[in-house]
Amino acid sequence: MTLSKTLLLTATAIAVPSLGWAQDADAAAVTAEMVWIMNTLLFLIGGFLVFFMACGFAMLEGGLVRSKNVTMQMTKNVALFSLATIAYWAFGYNLMYPLGTWSVEGVLSGVFGPGVLEAVGVDLAGADDGEYASTGSDFFFQLMFCAATASIVSGALAERIKLWPFLIFVIVLTGIIYPLQASWKWGGGFLDEMGFLDFAGSTVVHSVGGWAALAGALILGPRIGKYKDGRVNPMPGSNLALATLGMFILWLGWFGFNGGSQLAMGSVGDIADVSRIFANTNAAAAGGAVVALILTQLLYKKPDLTMILNGALAGLVSITAEPLTPSLGMATLIGGIGGVIVVFAVPMLDKFKIDDVVGAIPVHLCAGIWGTIAVVLTNGDASLGTQLYSILVVGIFTFVVSGVVWFILKAVVGIRVSEEAEIMGLDTSELGMEAYPEFSKG
Amino acid sequence: MTLSKTLLLTATAIAVPSLGWAQDADAAAVTAEMVWIMNTLLFLIGGFLVFFMACGFAMLEGGLVRSKNVTMQMTKNVALFSLATIAYWAFGYNLMYPLGTWSVEGVLSGVFGPGVLEAVGVDLAGADDGEYASTGSDFFFQLMFCAATASIVSGALAERIKLWPFLIFVIVLTGIIYPLQASWKWGGGFLDEMGFLDFAGSTVVHSVGGWAALAGALILGPRIGKYKDGRVNPMPGSNLALATLGMFILWLGWFGFNGGSQLAMGSVGDIADVSRIFANTNAAAAGGAVVALILTQLLYKKPDLTMILNGALAGLVSITAEPLTPSLGMATLIGGIGGVIVVFAVPMLDKFKIDDVVGAIPVHLCAGIWGTIAVVLTNGDASLGTQLYSILVVGIFTFVVSGVVWFILKAVVGIRVSEEAEIMGLDTSELGMEAYPEFSKG
Amino acid sequence: MTLSKTLLLTATAIAVPSLGWAQDADAAAVTAEMVWIMNTLLFLIGGFLVFFMACGFAMLEGGLVRSKNVTMQMTKNVALFSLATIAYWAFGYNLMYPLGTWSVEGVLSGVFGPGVLEAVGVDLAGADDGEYASTGSDFFFQLMFCAATASIVSGALAERIKLWPFLIFVIVLTGIIYPLQASWKWGGGFLDEMGFLDFAGSTVVHSVGGWAALAGALILGPRIGKYKDGRVNPMPGSNLALATLGMFILWLGWFGFNGGSQLAMGSVGDIADVSRIFANTNAAAAGGAVVALILTQLLYKKPDLTMILNGALAGLVSITAEPLTPSLGMATLIGGIGGVIVVFAVPMLDKFKIDDVVGAIPVHLCAGIWGTIAVVLTNGDASLGTQLYSILVVGIFTFVVSGVVWFILKAVVGIRVSEEAEIMGLDTSELGMEAYPEFSKG
Repeated sequence: MTLSKTLLLTATAIAVPSLGWAQDADAAAVTAEMVWIMNTLLFLIGGFLVFFMACGFAMLEGGLVRSKNVTMQMTKNVALFSLATIAYWAFGYNLMYPLGTWSVEGVLSGVFGPGVLEAVGVDLAGADDGEYASTGSDFFFQLMFCAATASIVSGALAERIKLWPFLIFVIVLTGIIYPLQASWKWGGGFLDEMGFLDFAGSTVVHSVGGWAALAGALILGPRIGKYKDGRVNPMPGSNLALATLGMFILWLGWFGFNGGSQLAMGSVGDIADVSRIFANTNAAAAGGAVVALILTQLLYKKPDLTMILNGALAGLVSITAEPLTPSLGMATLIGGIGGVIVVFAVPMLDKFKIDDVVGAIPVHLCAGIWGTIAVVLTNGDASLGTQLYSILVVGIFTFVVSGVVWFILKAVVGIRVSEEAEIMGLDTSELGMEAYPEFSKG
Repeated sequence: MTLSKTLLLTATAIAVPSLGWAQDADAAAVTAEMVWIMNTLLFLIGGFLVFFMACGFAMLEGGLVRSKNVTMQMTKNVALFSLATIAYWAFGYNLMYPLGTWSVEGVLSGVFGPGVLEAVGVDLAGADDGEYASTGSDFFFQLMFCAATASIVSGALAERIKLWPFLIFVIVLTGIIYPLQASWKWGGGFLDEMGFLDFAGSTVVHSVGGWAALAGALILGPRIGKYKDGRVNPMPGSNLALATLGMFILWLGWFGFNGGSQLAMGSVGDIADVSRIFANTNAAAAGGAVVALILTQLLYKKPDLTMILNGALAGLVSITAEPLTPSLGMATLIGGIGGVIVVFAVPMLDKFKIDDVVGAIPVHLCAGIWGTIAVVLTNGDASLGTQLYSILVVGIFTFVVSGVVWFILKAVVGIRVSEEAEIMGLDTSELGMEAYPEFSKG
Repeated sequence: MTLSKTLLLTATAIAVPSLGWAQDADAAAVTAEMVWIMNTLLFLIGGFLVFFMACGFAMLEGGLVRSKNVTMQMTKNVALFSLATIAYWAFGYNLMYPLGTWSVEGVLSGVFGPGVLEAVGVDLAGADDGEYASTGSDFFFQLMFCAATASIVSGALAERIKLWPFLIFVIVLTGIIYPLQASWKWGGGFLDEMGFLDFAGSTVVHSVGGWAALAGALILGPRIGKYKDGRVNPMPGSNLALATLGMFILWLGWFGFNGGSQLAMGSVGDIADVSRIFANTNAAAAGGAVVALILTQLLYKKPDLTMILNGALAGLVSITAEPLTPSLGMATLIGGIGGVIVVFAVPMLDKFKIDDVVGAIPVHLCAGIWGTIAVVLTNGDASLGTQLYSILVVGIFTFVVSGVVWFILKAVVGIRVSEEAEIMGLDTSELGMEAYPEFSKG
């Protein structure tokens, strides 16, 4: 039996190629093709979810500014996303990934030639060698992360910054600053080689937006009347329903943000991981919201909705550096600490007279740092030293370069509207168009 | 020929194992793995769509309450979803599914151990035996259904209930009441064994939310001034654009709610069924909206937008118990009858002085009962007796237990804000934060 | 070796059937089944994204009309989508696709029989022959395109048209006009045979909505006071945050609109194409927004948010006829020219005293024509003559038939509310329900 088996096996092995091997190859091809398809699909679904975060940021910020600045906040958010799309295509994507190299020819070929996309109707063999998903889908997905950093900045600097200098900063941020530092981790650069872990970007995306915003807020100064006679003058948002809508949209988009960052769902292991990430991301947001709810009740005797919204967002930022390895309970705790951070960081910023209109710095910078450190709690591969070192390197780079850009903009064109314009509101003074023209102001 | 064929066949059958069998096994493995991946993906897509319903409920309710209670309604909706996330993780999921068993150790292990999620990077063999999709994705999906029941309650009891007692009720509802009765059907319990059919939860989700809301509304009493001198005093919602947004978001989320409840899309048959469900769900919503449009035109000479919104939602609830077997026309009819129910149930509740601010009881309870009965129209496996029996059992259980909890809360901490606070509005009195601080009230 | 190989091959080929062939067939079945599943999934994801555009249109229009007409605009948008669902099911889908034939029996069977959907739990063999995806998913997806044409009309004719005549027009448009002309291209009709290219419907969907709106706007006339003493009286939208939300939702939905129109994602080539389409669609929107931003700054010294929103939408419409073949740069340019068109077409329409409340005609008709022509820039299969001919044929047909329907409606029931009702606002006069009852008007 054994003999004949071996014998026939050999015969079959020789004989089958035109049938059996082809079959075998087919089976393998199906697998490889399906993996490629599923990974690409993850980027596409993740990408449109993260795209929607641009809307979430716009609504959150539109709800938290005063009604006299809502048209401007909408204009900034639509414009910043659109400019980020162009800047990341022309410069950013090729800067970020070492596979591509940036060149004038590349830009020109992008306009009339294939650019970063694959040819129409590629097959698996024709797809970029070494790739495991469509480059187009990867570009689409990565672009959304880049644009998010600019959305973070727009909220912090609202109600007093000029439109065009802000948009120029956005181009520099999304075309150069973000992609350059992102390449250190996600482009396989030196932080990645050191073992820095930042799954979906607590540092690479959120703290970068936060540092750029902090530099801007320091140079721009607080809104008129915000800090007067040693007291903090509250300037309540004009539409908390809109702000809540924005928060929910961001929470929704975060499933794409963190889940998509698994970068693969073509195997049981990968999609089970995506599932963990979805569940943990949700748990962390819940943790942040509940902690902010309880803390503001305890501290101020009244729950504070804006703190709860920011608590949920801080929970989301906190889990972003490592949404995979925590258990659900741990994810809730990590997010909950994000909620604590927001509740204490918001008044702290006010103490330093740093005027952050929507709480972007507590949410994205402070919770982003916490989330990056929290990786060591659940991921055995993480080194606290490397995490701290990377936070510092990215922070110093982004803060300094952003600061220089803000300074140049301030010196050359000015970044702040006139006092009169600010008091009248940017909608009327800068745009001549009110967001709610029919509703009288109280 | 025949002889040699048989001969060689036997030889091959013996010989191939190390090649052909492996190949066969591979082919089978691909299939099983892809089914698992596709099922999990359905849970994830369905899950994020149903998650977004939390936002839809918040917007619908925020638009239908008066502006002085909008901040509170937003606070409740964010808080209830967050608390549901925690309660369903700590208690609910393990209560609902007999596979898991609830224990203090389980809760503790959830915090520091694996909890309900699979290990990171499982393979098909390592995945929970007998499972056909990721547990994490199932947890994520099921959680969203649980949270929806609490969202239903929050709308009915708006504008007069205290925040914290409401949130305590939410914890009991999502941690115990919902999961316990859901286990009777979806956990393979006695209603399931009897042949009770409730595809996506007209009874298990919607009527449960409705019963809990009804018990609360009865014990809480109507808003001050709602029923005066035998007349119903209309208290129009403050923002119908926001309410319409909420309705559209709910409609969108319902594709995940019903489509995801197919629980599988790894075969032609399953995804074709999901397609039927999508089309039928949409048709039922349309039917409900159109019927409410026509009926309010006929009855009141003027179409009533809030009825149309609730008509669409009632159509959706009506089709939820059986979105698969109806034809498109039948789905439209089933949804249309949901629209009829809403148009008549809303004034009927007012006649009994049951004050349901957003119409949650007509939409979720009345149409939920209708939808559960309507299963017998198109599904040959359904028994009217079993459907009615299950509606009763779930209804009595939920109504009684909810009532007891509401009574205890009323007795121990009180569930209603002071008369003064209610008249002033919960935003100012309870939270000290207006939703639209700059817009003067008419 | 060669000999024995051939010999054994023959033997194996004969011998294997009961094992190897079955295996081969299995492998093929897996592939065919997965392709069918993936294509269906594309329709479902694309479909729910395009569904959400109904919400986007409602929010955009609700934000751009004055507050006294918001309830009416919400009512129209919910009702038009619901009626489109019914009309497209009863008439449209079968008119559009030659496979189905419209009949009274068909309609009746749709109500009590299977209708356009496949049976529950079909297998690949039982699925409609020649199909490559679920009919239910195709119906769901196509319905959303049909409904979009009606949403376009509702914006242009806002603030003065009567509800019921508008809804009757919607039924004719979605039940007959749209499906009939769509069959010429997408039903394999004469325009398709001529080589007309319109990937996702710059002409078939957007210009059709635009032509129907133009016919309506001409017959309906401008709003009272819009054009007075040779001057254009601006009537600013009541809620630009809501309009921005609508635009973002439309942008999101467009990924489904264009990406889903690839009609397949079951191969590397198809999903890579979907990825290109996503990236190009996004780039075109960005191009349109940025161009409108810059142009309004240059022309009016102040960026105009409503132009920027419409610029993004015009960019999206422009790329819709060919989102696949352009490079990213070319897509940005094509979208950017859409932005130019909007900025110039809006005042041009005002010059002709054609009152289009939300800019639907510039966005959907003008940019739709441009997008259809722009196909020749990047798709070698396109003929400029055929594109122009098809634009004309579809345009004349839609404009003439729509005009006739509007004229009949005007003659028989009247299409315009009374002067008094218009000045008072449709919400109070026609519906007796204000959208923002508590906010006093400035």
